[in-house]
Amino acid sequence: MQSRLEQLKSILQETYDLEATVYLLNWDKATKMPSGGSDARARQIALLSRLEHEKFTSDEVGRLLEDLTPYADNLGYDHDDAGLIRATKILYDQRRRVPSDFVEEMQAHFAKSFSVWATARPKNDFATVQPYLERNLDLSRQYAEYFAPYDHIADGLLRQRNYGLTTEQVRALFAELRSELVKLLTKITEAEPVDDSFLYGDFPKAKQYDFVKKAITAFGYDWERGRMDDAHHPFATRFSIGDVRITTRASETHLGNGLFATMHEAGHAMYEQGINQAYEPSPLARGTSSGVHESQSRLWENRVGRGKAFWQHFYSELQATFPQLEAVPLDNFYKAINRVKPGLIRVDADEVTYNLHIMLRSDLSIELLDGSLAVKDLPDAWRARYESDLGIIPEDDKDGVMQDVHWYSFHIGGTFEGYSIGNILGAQYYDALLAQHPNIEDDYTQGDFSRLHTWLKDNIWTHGRKYTTRELTQRITGDDISVTPLVNYLNAKFGDIYNL
Amino acid sequence: MQSRLEQLKSILQETYDLEATVYLLNWDKATKMPSGGSDARARQIALLSRLEHEKFTSDEVGRLLEDLTPYADNLGYDHDDAGLIRATKILYDQRRRVPSDFVEEMQAHFAKSFSVWATARPKNDFATVQPYLERNLDLSRQYAEYFAPYDHIADGLLRQRNYGLTTEQVRALFAELRSELVKLLTKITEAEPVDDSFLYGDFPKAKQYDFVKKAITAFGYDWERGRMDDAHHPFATRFSIGDVRITTRASETHLGNGLFATMHEAGHAMYEQGINQAYEPSPLARGTSSGVHESQSRLWENRVGRGKAFWQHFYSELQATFPQLEAVPLDNFYKAINRVKPGLIRVDADEVTYNLHIMLRSDLSIELLDGSLAVKDLPDAWRARYESDLGIIPEDDKDGVMQDVHWYSFHIGGTFEGYSIGNILGAQYYDALLAQHPNIEDDYTQGDFSRLHTWLKDNIWTHGRKYTTRELTQRITGDDISVTPLVNYLNAKFGDIYNL
Repeated sequence: MQSRLEQLKSILQETYDLEATVYLLNWDKATKMPSGGSDARARQIALLSRLEHEKFTSDEVGRLLEDLTPYADNLGYDHDDAGLIRATKILYDQRRRVPSDFVEEMQAHFAKSFSVWATARPKNDFATVQPYLERNLDLSRQYAEYFAPYDHIADGLLRQRNYGLTTEQVRALFAELRSELVKLLTKITEAEPVDDSFLYGDFPKAKQYDFVKKAITAFGYDWERGRMDDAHHPFATRFSIGDVRITTRASETHLGNGLFATMHEAGHAMYEQGINQAYEPSPLARGTSSGVHESQSRLWENRVGRGKAFWQHFYSELQATFPQLEAVPLDNFYKAINRVKPGLIRVDADEVTYNLHIMLRSDLSIELLDGSLAVKDLPDAWRARYESDLGIIPEDDKDGVMQDVHWYSFHIGGTFEGYSIGNILGAQYYDALLAQHPNIEDDYTQGDFSRLHTWLKDNIWTHGRKYTTRELTQRITGDDISVTPLVNYLNAKFGDIYNL
Repeated sequence: MQSRLEQLKSILQETYDLEATVYLLNWDKATKMPSGGSDARARQIALLSRLEHEKFTSDEVGRLLEDLTPYADNLGYDHDDAGLIRATKILYDQRRRVPSDFVEEMQAHFAKSFSVWATARPKNDFATVQPYLERNLDLSRQYAEYFAPYDHIADGLLRQRNYGLTTEQVRALFAELRSELVKLLTKITEAEPVDDSFLYGDFPKAKQYDFVKKAITAFGYDWERGRMDDAHHPFATRFSIGDVRITTRASETHLGNGLFATMHEAGHAMYEQGINQAYEPSPLARGTSSGVHESQSRLWENRVGRGKAFWQHFYSELQATFPQLEAVPLDNFYKAINRVKPGLIRVDADEVTYNLHIMLRSDLSIELLDGSLAVKDLPDAWRARYESDLGIIPEDDKDGVMQDVHWYSFHIGGTFEGYSIGNILGAQYYDALLAQHPNIEDDYTQGDFSRLHTWLKDNIWTHGRKYTTRELTQRITGDDISVTPLVNYLNAKFGDIYNL
């Protein structure tokens, strides 16, 4: 049986390295590639994606998994090889449903569609992206069909990426969260507003990056196994546990969003850097789901980066970087970076409205998939939802329906939900951390994040994909997914800031 | 027959894109990758190289070529599809000799060996690289054996990359060139020396790059299909005709080498950018050999960049960039950048001694391959050859035997000769250009390189790999390879500079 395990590992090493190569092709496309490279790059990404998919979903892998499953059962649930066989089987059963040619076609479309979107967005030109989005919807529906039978067409897409929840369950969970958020938001809207005028002014990008690099270095982001580049859209990506990169962006006239976006991506990256090195190269050496990934990125961005303890240490450094803040007391600054204000841009949203942005995208994705919404009507539907959910109407499509890269470079359905599920899980995990280390935020006031880093590494990161999201959540919290910790945290934090 | 041609083209598209991906993995390794990524990157490069090699050398390609060869013969020699089938057949017959597993093993070794060299070189630590070099020699000898039968073990390696010349022919050609160069060098050594002291001082890298970017833009390097990055070792690479990148480096205390290295790489890059777009994606869409490639890079570096006409236009711009040159007359500057002085560093060498550097490397490579020199004795052999050929002895291995990346990241044999063959061919091509456009250098004094760019594009670049080096040389010059034009050019240029 050892030799069959070695055979499996040898195939998985190849698919791991092929997948990493696809990520490099994408990273380069987003950060360094000249525009002339775009057509060939689309072909390269599509080809490598197909080769990886063919190899991973081959009959041989299926046979090896069948042979090895009883062996894995005997090893005991927590044995690494058992975890490897189990995680591979889960992926195999999902991915095997999708033909390799379809993967190639879809990836080629995404690469092309991304380039079209990147050029059309600054021009506010929805007409140009519309046929690409329509094609994406066709492809996404076809993709969803591979997961039949289902109760709802979106089920397969949601389930495989997000905690195993069905469309109905996602909607119920989000409805519960939405009703609590709307209550909180109503109270905040009636309270005295927070002043954040001093966050607007002259904030050179290079200085913002200098500052935030110090912050994420203190968090424990390892630069010998990473780097940071400018990009259109902030993201984290990885080519091995030894090479996990982040990209970011910043406004030269506003302080805040650039810093928090960088901390967010560093959170993703530290997760991948923190995986047990022995799991590489194999499917175990990845974060377990987009939900858990977002729980980590949003935790560093919000619980740490938008928390008071962090700034008790770092605010003087920020004031030295931007002397115009010298007249602004820490408490005012803390309130300003947490100002709740319904806005148009998801990635710039405060913690209260953020999930409203996500949930409306989730709803629209599901409506597109089930046919109750047509692509041509999407800009209007977007405006209507922003008006009803956030009370504001986007003036253009650039900051409306063309805002996020997702619909233009991934399939429709299952790609947004992870953010809110991450916020929910992150609050649950943080409660578990506080139960063990009630005074951990005192560390942050000293610029010391090592206990936090170690706790997350030991409890989450190191396991990679050995446990599913649900299993991991059970291990950490003893509980299933629940919105209560997030709601309690938001009510407490913003109750304090707004004197509710 | 059309459907078989389409089948062949479809496979060749995949190998083209796989090869491009290997180049991206290598470019990233040399320019952006954090050190932690090194082990995984070696695996990724090895895997993709094997997959590309397997596909290109498959039985299926062999069968298709066999079926298509009579068809190609009927199309006429200059038909693009005939050229494609012919060029593919040449590559197939060469590459088919080498097993894919061997390619993977060799590429994995090179990737690792490169990283070891990059760390050991600054420490002047030959002992650390020695076992890697020994392993490379084993692999290179094994590789050479795939080209048996041969008169000399280096034959296969030299032939496939360099004009089809055997070891004996390379040695004869180089002996002829060496004897002329030594005569010229002796006269120069006895002449009054040129002053280049003003090239040493404070020359910030960023300013050098700003200047040289203007120069290569004027040459016609297309930035929408390229970019420039800092690297350990200057090189050009390409992921498609639409994405041809250069890397460079510069000393902050010396002006010249950084500029000329950049022009050199731009020469390589313009060749690839200038290939007929219709040839992509296929093996036709590449420069035809390392010799012709170097003929282009060395032409832009030396005939243009180290020529007087170029500086008649660009010197005032350089003086504005580096005001310390305002007191230096153009003529003195021109002589200084052409100062002939035996030195240790190949890439910094003047045009007269450059080929001496190359030829001694060629000799040492051949001796390593045929067993008359052992790796452990290489540092001593290097010093002995520098003393006998250039009259100077390297004080350390860093600027001695560890100077060039080649032995540490390619096989030994056939990788250096292209530079001198390029110098030889470049002089032949330039004579053909001058016969058609006797006053073309007047253009350069106006900063106008469009006629030169167009002539090179029409006569060389556009053809890609459609013609072999020998065919291309025949088409352009009506002649075979010959050292006479290079010798005449060097005698005239340096006779003028040194009043010989």
